[in-house]
Amino acid sequence: MTVDLLSALDESSKRVNAFLDEILSGQKPEELYKASRHLVEAGGKRLRPFLVLESCRLVGGDPEKALPMAAAVELIHNFTLVHDDIMDEDHLRRGVPTVHTLYGLPTAINAGDMLFAKAYEAALRSYSKGVPLRKILRALEVLTETTIAICEGQTMDMAFEKRNDVGEEEYMEMIEKKTTALLVASAEAGAIVGSGSTRDVKRLGRTMRASGLAFQVIDDVLGVTADEKVLGKPIGSDIREGKSTLIVLHSLKHAGKRQRETLLKALGNRGATPEEIKGAIEVLGSTGSIDYALRKAEALKRRARRELEGFPPSESRDLLMSLVDYIVSRDR
Amino acid sequence: MTVDLLSALDESSKRVNAFLDEILSGQKPEELYKASRHLVEAGGKRLRPFLVLESCRLVGGDPEKALPMAAAVELIHNFTLVHDDIMDEDHLRRGVPTVHTLYGLPTAINAGDMLFAKAYEAALRSYSKGVPLRKILRALEVLTETTIAICEGQTMDMAFEKRNDVGEEEYMEMIEKKTTALLVASAEAGAIVGSGSTRDVKRLGRTMRASGLAFQVIDDVLGVTADEKVLGKPIGSDIREGKSTLIVLHSLKHAGKRQRETLLKALGNRGATPEEIKGAIEVLGSTGSIDYALRKAEALKRRARRELEGFPPSESRDLLMSLVDYIVSRDR
Repeated sequence: MTVDLLSALDESSKRVNAFLDEILSGQKPEELYKASRHLVEAGGKRLRPFLVLESCRLVGGDPEKALPMAAAVELIHNFTLVHDDIMDEDHLRRGVPTVHTLYGLPTAINAGDMLFAKAYEAALRSYSKGVPLRKILRALEVLTETTIAICEGQTMDMAFEKRNDVGEEEYMEMIEKKTTALLVASAEAGAIVGSGSTRDVKRLGRTMRASGLAFQVIDDVLGVTADEKVLGKPIGSDIREGKSTLIVLHSLKHAGKRQRETLLKALGNRGATPEEIKGAIEVLGSTGSIDYALRKAEALKRRARRELEGFPPSESRDLLMSLVDYIVSRDR
Repeated sequence: MTVDLLSALDESSKRVNAFLDEILSGQKPEELYKASRHLVEAGGKRLRPFLVLESCRLVGGDPEKALPMAAAVELIHNFTLVHDDIMDEDHLRRGVPTVHTLYGLPTAINAGDMLFAKAYEAALRSYSKGVPLRKILRALEVLTETTIAICEGQTMDMAFEKRNDVGEEEYMEMIEKKTTALLVASAEAGAIVGSGSTRDVKRLGRTMRASGLAFQVIDDVLGVTADEKVLGKPIGSDIREGKSTLIVLHSLKHAGKRQRETLLKALGNRGATPEEIKGAIEVLGSTGSIDYALRKAEALKRRARRELEGFPPSESRDLLMSLVDYIVSRDR
């Protein structure tokens, strides 16, 4: 991350956090509000709110007016994480216990619902910032369609774990909905609130779509090639969990009979030995699937940069370019 | 229910159901949409959508324009039911298995989230019906604040089950949020979309607030006085479950030492004998608590009718009066 991006992120985070604090503080019942604040206060880089504010500025708008929308996307992000952690039975997030682990299932469901409703409460405050009504409504449409897409993506992801015939197109649709959609919506909502032209709104959306997809594909590559210390989890975890990554899908399609057997022996097998995992990764390499994913990620990165270069040079464009580079950088 | 109300409800249900069908049909992943439609299609009287449409008409608006908002409140209602059934571990609703019972916990959480997002999708379609932007935004604020209140009410309800020192004021706040808020919001949203004056919007809200509270208090009375066949569950179930109803709260406050002991022996005791339940109900009677609740319900019913009578006579007012009478009627 560049120094400029880091300090810009830091500054925008402060403003967004103050807004979030106001929306989520000092209300009753205390248990519910504490549970709702838990994950929000546990950290997070606030990349999405930053995207809202900076996209607004890029198209000539006043980022101050986009603050409610910036808080709204962060609330939607946190709402989906709270509920996803229940569905995926995850017990740690951002280095702290997940909401349902700390507060129990009923309160965690309720806290997620609250965060979702609070996202709209935040977004609706755009009116008091002087954002034109038509723009507020358009941004609400984007946030709403995106939340629906996230729900669809989550269901697809859960269903894919039980299948080994997932096609590449379906896979890309799933990550587009589950991972990428909120990045796209953040950029679009910011540009809409900043009264950007439809062309600019769409271009920013395409930039973030390509960035988000590149991020996910690179994440899949790192899962089978990175150093375990860098990765923060054992190499091949994705294989053990039976995740249909782009690499696995490509390999299953192009593998010979014996390669396929080697791969399927490890895929979704939580008791797979290190040798079996190693064998599976060798198959992924020899079917050219890791290279295939890398080429795909490179193409997506180039597309993201090219889209953003369609805007005239400005400080905002530089910052967003650094953000795109950060999102698609390979060293995490 | 009067014949006029019945046929008006029937007509509005058809239009609302067609709109709901359009919003929830033919989309993928199929599993998620099926789970989302499950409870919606299992029935329900569509009282809340009717309230939206008729409140719109009462203030001189075109009910056709309120259709998206009517669908929105029904979607919010169903979203909260799907999640409440998970939290309360209920397995039957509207005579069919609950969503989590049929589709499992992860899909049920996701389906509830979908219904919530779809509520906003529906509400935002008000724009294409020609509802003024300012009115759409105001109605969205009402729906959003109400959903937050419902989450708060649900948490309060769950917390009250573990306490026996709940005050009457807290109890009324809980039922106002959990049960009454969406009825109030339905009437208000309809009147807002119909471009009613602030005075009319508030009056309709007060009408439904009093009706909703009366309904809940009467429900509490029936729980300890009604015929089991009418009630559909064993008499005293509320006592066995340890529910802090208005009657119980009043009785605990006014009971003597021995009366209190008799009551607490049965309260929240799932193994209480019929004699212990009978003893507890006798205490509720002799502390005057059943009469107290009945008087309170009567006062609320009168208030609801008086508020509605503030509007000039019209077909809409007659239908809403029948609806209020139906909600607060004692024979269910």
